[in-house]
Amino acid sequence: MPLAALAGSVKSPNGNLVLTFDASNGIPKYSLTYKGKEVVKPSRMGFELAEDKHTSPEMRHRDLMDGFMVMKEETKEFDETWKPVWGETATIRNHYNELCVTLDQEVMPVRRGPATPGIHERPVTHTRTMIIRFRVYNDGIGFRYEFPQQRSMSYFLIKEEHTEFSMTGDHLAWWLPGDYDTQEQMTIESRLSEIRGRYRQAVNWGNSSVATFSPTGVQTSLQMKTDDGLYINIHEAACLDYATMHLELVDTKTKALTTKLEGSSNKYTPNPTPSNYELPQPFTFVSHLTPDATGLKGAMQTPCNTPWRTIIVSDDARDMLSSNLILNLNEPCKIEDTSWIHPTKYCGVWWEMIVGKSSWNYTDEFPSIKLDEIDWTKAKPNGRHGANNEKVKRYIDFAAKNGLDQVLVEGWNVGWEDWANMWKRDVFDFVTPYPDFDIKMLNEYAHSKGVKLLMHHETSSSTQNYERHIKEAFELMNKYGYDAVKTGYVGDIIPRGDHHYSQSMNNHYLYVIQEAAKHHIMVNSHEATRPTGLCRTYPNLVGGESARGTEYEAFGGNRPDHTCILPFTRLQGGPMDYTPGIFETKLSNWSNNTSWARITIAGSLALYLTMYSPLQMAADLPEHYEKYDDAFQFIRDVACDWDDSRYLEAEPADYITVARKAKGTDNWFVGGKCDENGHESTIKLDFLDKGRKYQCTIYADAKDAHYEKNPKAYTITKKVVKAGDTLKVKEAPGGGFAISLIAQ
Amino acid sequence: MPLAALAGSVKSPNGNLVLTFDASNGIPKYSLTYKGKEVVKPSRMGFELAEDKHTSPEMRHRDLMDGFMVMKEETKEFDETWKPVWGETATIRNHYNELCVTLDQEVMPVRRGPATPGIHERPVTHTRTMIIRFRVYNDGIGFRYEFPQQRSMSYFLIKEEHTEFSMTGDHLAWWLPGDYDTQEQMTIESRLSEIRGRYRQAVNWGNSSVATFSPTGVQTSLQMKTDDGLYINIHEAACLDYATMHLELVDTKTKALTTKLEGSSNKYTPNPTPSNYELPQPFTFVSHLTPDATGLKGAMQTPCNTPWRTIIVSDDARDMLSSNLILNLNEPCKIEDTSWIHPTKYCGVWWEMIVGKSSWNYTDEFPSIKLDEIDWTKAKPNGRHGANNEKVKRYIDFAAKNGLDQVLVEGWNVGWEDWANMWKRDVFDFVTPYPDFDIKMLNEYAHSKGVKLLMHHETSSSTQNYERHIKEAFELMNKYGYDAVKTGYVGDIIPRGDHHYSQSMNNHYLYVIQEAAKHHIMVNSHEATRPTGLCRTYPNLVGGESARGTEYEAFGGNRPDHTCILPFTRLQGGPMDYTPGIFETKLSNWSNNTSWARITIAGSLALYLTMYSPLQMAADLPEHYEKYDDAFQFIRDVACDWDDSRYLEAEPADYITVARKAKGTDNWFVGGKCDENGHESTIKLDFLDKGRKYQCTIYADAKDAHYEKNPKAYTITKKVVKAGDTLKVKEAPGGGFAISLIAQ
Repeated sequence: MPLAALAGSVKSPNGNLVLTFDASNGIPKYSLTYKGKEVVKPSRMGFELAEDKHTSPEMRHRDLMDGFMVMKEETKEFDETWKPVWGETATIRNHYNELCVTLDQEVMPVRRGPATPGIHERPVTHTRTMIIRFRVYNDGIGFRYEFPQQRSMSYFLIKEEHTEFSMTGDHLAWWLPGDYDTQEQMTIESRLSEIRGRYRQAVNWGNSSVATFSPTGVQTSLQMKTDDGLYINIHEAACLDYATMHLELVDTKTKALTTKLEGSSNKYTPNPTPSNYELPQPFTFVSHLTPDATGLKGAMQTPCNTPWRTIIVSDDARDMLSSNLILNLNEPCKIEDTSWIHPTKYCGVWWEMIVGKSSWNYTDEFPSIKLDEIDWTKAKPNGRHGANNEKVKRYIDFAAKNGLDQVLVEGWNVGWEDWANMWKRDVFDFVTPYPDFDIKMLNEYAHSKGVKLLMHHETSSSTQNYERHIKEAFELMNKYGYDAVKTGYVGDIIPRGDHHYSQSMNNHYLYVIQEAAKHHIMVNSHEATRPTGLCRTYPNLVGGESARGTEYEAFGGNRPDHTCILPFTRLQGGPMDYTPGIFETKLSNWSNNTSWARITIAGSLALYLTMYSPLQMAADLPEHYEKYDDAFQFIRDVACDWDDSRYLEAEPADYITVARKAKGTDNWFVGGKCDENGHESTIKLDFLDKGRKYQCTIYADAKDAHYEKNPKAYTITKKVVKAGDTLKVKEAPGGGFAISLIAQ
Repeated sequence: MPLAALAGSVKSPNGNLVLTFDASNGIPKYSLTYKGKEVVKPSRMGFELAEDKHTSPEMRHRDLMDGFMVMKEETKEFDETWKPVWGETATIRNHYNELCVTLDQEVMPVRRGPATPGIHERPVTHTRTMIIRFRVYNDGIGFRYEFPQQRSMSYFLIKEEHTEFSMTGDHLAWWLPGDYDTQEQMTIESRLSEIRGRYRQAVNWGNSSVATFSPTGVQTSLQMKTDDGLYINIHEAACLDYATMHLELVDTKTKALTTKLEGSSNKYTPNPTPSNYELPQPFTFVSHLTPDATGLKGAMQTPCNTPWRTIIVSDDARDMLSSNLILNLNEPCKIEDTSWIHPTKYCGVWWEMIVGKSSWNYTDEFPSIKLDEIDWTKAKPNGRHGANNEKVKRYIDFAAKNGLDQVLVEGWNVGWEDWANMWKRDVFDFVTPYPDFDIKMLNEYAHSKGVKLLMHHETSSSTQNYERHIKEAFELMNKYGYDAVKTGYVGDIIPRGDHHYSQSMNNHYLYVIQEAAKHHIMVNSHEATRPTGLCRTYPNLVGGESARGTEYEAFGGNRPDHTCILPFTRLQGGPMDYTPGIFETKLSNWSNNTSWARITIAGSLALYLTMYSPLQMAADLPEHYEKYDDAFQFIRDVACDWDDSRYLEAEPADYITVARKAKGTDNWFVGGKCDENGHESTIKLDFLDKGRKYQCTIYADAKDAHYEKNPKAYTITKKVVKAGDTLKVKEAPGGGFAISLIAQ
């Protein structure tokens, strides 16, 4: 029987957050307060369903939007502490109060053909069950939809998820234009009401948008700030076999959602909403899933559930960065033996290709390449191929000398002559090296020096081809002693028409992670879907890109505040392979590239702390590091796995300061990074062991340092400090600092 | 320099066929005569190209339809004799005259941004090269488009191929409605002018159409007959990494092509033709390729070529059946060691599931199944599961006793509880047997009796899932001693939106054949694209379905003339696993199925000869064969590989009589099959060795036999015959006969 009470609420363990659920009129809605202040106004939850020729009659024309009865409400408290395989802290507490609401929806019977004469036809009412599970933490909430196995709904198709996030006002937001295929745009800072007006600018910035869908469509994680100082972050957790979610701001004038017209680059059309769809409040975001090639957004089989929709809330920006909400909402580790998973510092034959000084491809001889028709030993070398034996050995020597664990080599395998955006399925085989890359010799040489090579699999987004070759590719890695792969998904997805963030592609990325785990291989996935904390469940997913990385410093540049935004947005779901460490920021100093990195050397050092990742690259060329060896000392020293982390200062797009305790040691490292306005950082050393002395080395911007005018001006100061001391460090415009504190 | 001569012609070796090519006005056209009679009127050739965001400016808005200059015309004669691994004859002669025309098309230059000041901009004209290669045989012609590697056209996208086949009149035709996903409709016999009017009937017949596209769209191979007694067959050969071709008859009233509206089941809309497209003559077919999920019909990389477009012509219907044109146009065998490929007679646990007496699935317990979440040993059996140890052993015993080589077992592997049309990707794993199917024991039991099991891989059209599992699946087969697999592609393709006959799916089928060959596995592919002679190149492709098979006798039935049409149409491209041999034609005699097979027992025996295949099933239940063991003797005796074949009588949809000499013996087998009108067959035994006696056994319809009223009335007559003798055999309505001639 339906419950009399149609509303329930649950508080966070500390009482600050109160989640209220309401299903009056049969429409599921939730709302949220923080310390008594409204954070999310009553917001609808539900699904518009799609139909196809196989949809049963009673399932037609009936969405999961209304007509629900609350059958059951259950609450529970959960408190555990778990140990990540790698992370910012040695342990993570997972403490929440849960509200689980079981909803039933009656589906009207459909007359199936003429009744048998003489037999009175008794219509049978079908009931469908949907569960909404809320978890309320001290740092925010997560909720998801669950569909138990049920005969009346074994399979269903999602046309659109209509989860609302109704904001209380015209908040400040840091957003990327919603896009089915890229997350590599520059972040725009604006009021919610300005999104539509600044959308064109956002799309055109750096010319990196690919498949936008609405002039008020934005990506998650979306960081906001209210006028009364509340920080709100919307994202998702545990996106598994489900399409990646975007957010679409409801137009407050037309009160309709808009969607881009198919096949047109500039026209948007009102998106027909379900007839029974109540128009949302102003400043309401509605979920917008990534479609597949047919426009479908989900093919579901019960039992199943959606990813968690997450809202992190605090009046302290630092809590946004230390939150473990998204990791906590993921399933525990599914890999039994994790001994082969390890943090990694690496360099690589990469930046000089990005900058344009050497090439991925080996020859310029052919207009196009068919892998099985080329005798590579007879192809004419172009003389610019980066991944050659001599150069790779030079990088191996550099890594060995400086304590770097691995050397990434891109362009080692045949097929780079014409690989992107050609709808070319059989673009790489992932096992055949170019003639000047001796895979056996180079791996043996590396191993003899205590270094490993880091594999590179650019798929050119031909996922069908990658899946056909993946087993042989991983077997090759096992054979030669690689234990990590950087995967890439540049260009349009094959099968054609699919998108980088669709349900099927998210399933593909997971398939790769799982197959890699079987072969004890760590994965660093570039251009894949933005992470949602899956690295808790699959800790061999040690990194990813899924945002605008350092490579864009060679494609026109990133804004100086870029790295003060990413920890609030992209990094919520997991670590990023940002590939920091550019020392020679003016690329024209050593190449024909006129782009330049908008950062100081001290700022570059700071990124090894502010951009948390268990996988950190020293991205610049060995000869550039050799010129500034005293600064490079910090990269040699810095850890990339931690027992503790303390965010000391933070403001989105302005500055971030963090102190981290290196795994298994008593040493601390502190990093601060700021935007184009500079920042004065005051660091209270109250996290140090009392009564102990620390050798402190401060890598700071020189007084006249500046990300454009004087990026290479830094100072290195050494002194002895103790707990309770305070350090003051000035960060230059676009600069930062890095500090090592070695326990004596 | 362009040639002055804009037309060339080439004759067949015997001079009967004359192919003329003409490119006046820059438009490529071909025409064809047979013994001086016009067969194909001047017909255009070319391509409409698609564009996407990556199309270079000079490639836009420029089709490969006109503006061509003839640069070169080359002719040559070719004559070889090759030995098929298996076939209707021991050797095949490949004898043709070839005309190869090189065409160049100038592409207008496009101004790329503003010219550099002070530098005079000199537009560069790009030239694209297309070659058309014609091969003229005594039995017909083949032609294809070839695109050499060229910098101005490394990649291109095909919107539509516009190859015309302009017929000379309102011929009689045997056609299936064009469909992107099925070929299992009943054939319609009508005049060309009647296609539109009878299209709805064709689509609705047996309710088997899935994705039709035009009310004048038909499939190949298309068999026609002219009023003056000429037989014409249009099909294609060597369809590799290219979309399957349909034919669309141009509407003689609207003079436009029509195409079905997306998303609507009943509405057709005029298909916009290129603006420069000259309206074709009446009775002209135009090629219509199968699209992918985005509507695209081809993604091409030069060097490449299309399949051969084939036209078989003769004034003798028997030549349609003995033609090797399509095999000859395929590449020679690419499998080096073919010793493991062998003709196969088999029975199987199959018909009783098709009829509905037992089930593929093991349990009815769950609304739906997720493979990794079920403990099958604890699932409740439904008691109807066909593939159980006891039954399979019974079939193995039957096969061993009767000299059948293999036993097919469907429903052996987990996942059949909900497998079709659910958009379910992970539907089968192809390696996990149900608890009542002991894969090790059953294979050992079979081998101990000299029999093999025949593997079954139903993919449920989830090709992504099949490709992920295919290596393990084939390794399992190798482990247990299977050497043949029946694959299935029931339901909608996953990735969603793709079609069974698209370029990507054709690539998938080939991938499966090639991977199977690596594991020494023969393939019998059901619901795959219709064959185009690939079995010459990959002789491990021993069979296929790709047409309405015997299973439909349990789904409402096939017309009696059905098997007198298939050899003219479906079998042109390769053998069919028609699964003949139904003796208990009234299914209600032994099941709840009210359908019945429209054939006599003698007719069923005839199919082992008239429906050539190296893979032949005895499809009925062992207990039914045991009841008619004297008739079953023919199935025991008949060969399925041949040194010679002679088509003695033939008329499409009326009758077919063929004599075949069993491989490596002096024995002949003769079979005759007729339609619902019966037939009187006169067989001159002039193919027997002179002066030699033959023990002749005639399995014929009894006098009162009839496919509906008296299907099981047959006679068996034995006598001694010699070369020069004549046999007269009467075939009942829907009947036939079979004769064995054993050399003494």
